[in-house]
Amino acid sequence: MTFELTILGSSSATPLINRHPSAQVLNYHERFFLIDCGEGTQMQMLQYKVKMSKIQHILISHLHGDHYLGLMGLLFTMHLNGRLDELHVYGQPELMDIIDLQLKLSNTILRFTLIFHPVQHYRSVVIYDDDDFQISTIILNHRIPCTGFLFREKMRMHKLNMDEVAKYDIPVSKLNRIKAGEDFTDADGNIIKNEKLILPPQQLRSYAYCSDTIYDEEIIPYIKGVDLLYHEATFGDEMKERAQATFHSTAKQAATIARKAEVKRLMIGHFSARYKELQTLLDEAQTVFENTELAIEGNLVQVGEC
Amino acid sequence: MTFELTILGSSSATPLINRHPSAQVLNYHERFFLIDCGEGTQMQMLQYKVKMSKIQHILISHLHGDHYLGLMGLLFTMHLNGRLDELHVYGQPELMDIIDLQLKLSNTILRFTLIFHPVQHYRSVVIYDDDDFQISTIILNHRIPCTGFLFREKMRMHKLNMDEVAKYDIPVSKLNRIKAGEDFTDADGNIIKNEKLILPPQQLRSYAYCSDTIYDEEIIPYIKGVDLLYHEATFGDEMKERAQATFHSTAKQAATIARKAEVKRLMIGHFSARYKELQTLLDEAQTVFENTELAIEGNLVQVGEC
Repeated sequence: MTFELTILGSSSATPLINRHPSAQVLNYHERFFLIDCGEGTQMQMLQYKVKMSKIQHILISHLHGDHYLGLMGLLFTMHLNGRLDELHVYGQPELMDIIDLQLKLSNTILRFTLIFHPVQHYRSVVIYDDDDFQISTIILNHRIPCTGFLFREKMRMHKLNMDEVAKYDIPVSKLNRIKAGEDFTDADGNIIKNEKLILPPQQLRSYAYCSDTIYDEEIIPYIKGVDLLYHEATFGDEMKERAQATFHSTAKQAATIARKAEVKRLMIGHFSARYKELQTLLDEAQTVFENTELAIEGNLVQVGEC
Repeated sequence: MTFELTILGSSSATPLINRHPSAQVLNYHERFFLIDCGEGTQMQMLQYKVKMSKIQHILISHLHGDHYLGLMGLLFTMHLNGRLDELHVYGQPELMDIIDLQLKLSNTILRFTLIFHPVQHYRSVVIYDDDDFQISTIILNHRIPCTGFLFREKMRMHKLNMDEVAKYDIPVSKLNRIKAGEDFTDADGNIIKNEKLILPPQQLRSYAYCSDTIYDEEIIPYIKGVDLLYHEATFGDEMKERAQATFHSTAKQAATIARKAEVKRLMIGHFSARYKELQTLLDEAQTVFENTELAIEGNLVQVGEC
């Protein structure tokens, strides 16, 4: 099952050419979640061939412009492109005021239903839950109310043990039910237990998105052991006072959180425009947590093992 | 004296790759005016090397997203880049509500002074006036209140007749005063009249920006004879019913306005995303008004003769 990110932007507040503000698209088994939506996100979707009609959920971490200023343009474009499917938007309650005001002043009544989910910033809650996937919020520590998001698989289709499947001559029509956990009953009424027909269960995968935040160990319980942690790393080590003053993190601090939370991989992003090249930030993070990578726009990033 | 436009965007509501929503920068003798500010304008400024610190005035024609959604991002970036110079913003009164709400929710107090000039949409008024340059509004006919802008030179420095200047052996230090219209008195007290020392007066130049509007001959008195008319041409001739229904114009209609207003040149823009290539729109316009060009982002466009 696909569990894949497309990075659309990883700049902090001021953009560079080819470094756009925060936006990522998460594809979990053809459910598409847009995570933050900085200015230009709809153009980045065109650039990286993300179909905006497929986006069903938009999650906004907080109301600093570099995380949401692309939202109105995207909504208008969806409207003009004739979207009819409902769209879920999650964010601070006041985000809906911003949307409402601009719809009203442009005299726009959206063709599709926009379902707004106000997000609390003082305690972690589940904001999305279906049969096999769940999203909850992570309380971040920033200058204004800010939440991260934790994406977790709840169950995972089993992989078939094809040798055993062949041995019992199981018809193709039954395979999906076996993947879903059912036993198999052959023509003579013999029951073959499910665990004989499948491979050992796979780990449930998880992804945590943490932007923007000061270094804060209080997030560790929420992100413990995730397959992939995105943590902001606005600054290098030489700017740690500035990171502290602006409620941002350094690359080393992001890596320290990753190490203490025992995550499997760390991806850093939200880079200050002062860093024209990013190798130094990566190097600094890797001195603390080796399995670190950079969020580079256009990159496809797999979460866990497929 | 420079009177030059940089086109930053000329798409209508939905962007394409490499076709951004409306934005132009007008440089009149090192006074910089940003005309409309669609999403991504700040990135386009980086791309085309327009220094945002130089922008002193931002004019917003109306509150459809493709004409103003880049404004907040630009304001935030100016703020973060340490701008201290005051900035003048002109637009529908409610634009200030949009700005205020987003400043408040991001907990931002701009470092620089933003002077907001509410623009009336029911009668043409002068909104900017200095010694040699004036801007007035043009009432456009769109689905929501919408104004165009007319930029006019009021006077122009004279060009020197260098043969005469040499003949009277005029010191360099006096030349600027002669350009400004003064006579010259030589060492013996002889007065050389200004008109002997300068070339015949040049035409005062003008630029009219008309976006968005249905075909409406009522704008003709405002734009009569301008050196350059920018007129929206969202659609081709085959879509004229749709143009009518959405209060937009076709390329031919833009050209008809240009011909009837006896302007010198026409530039069409605000192209619908359905036109991947624009030659057909240009061809259609040129059947009515030959001196037509396309607004292509990155283009530098001179207004009148320098």
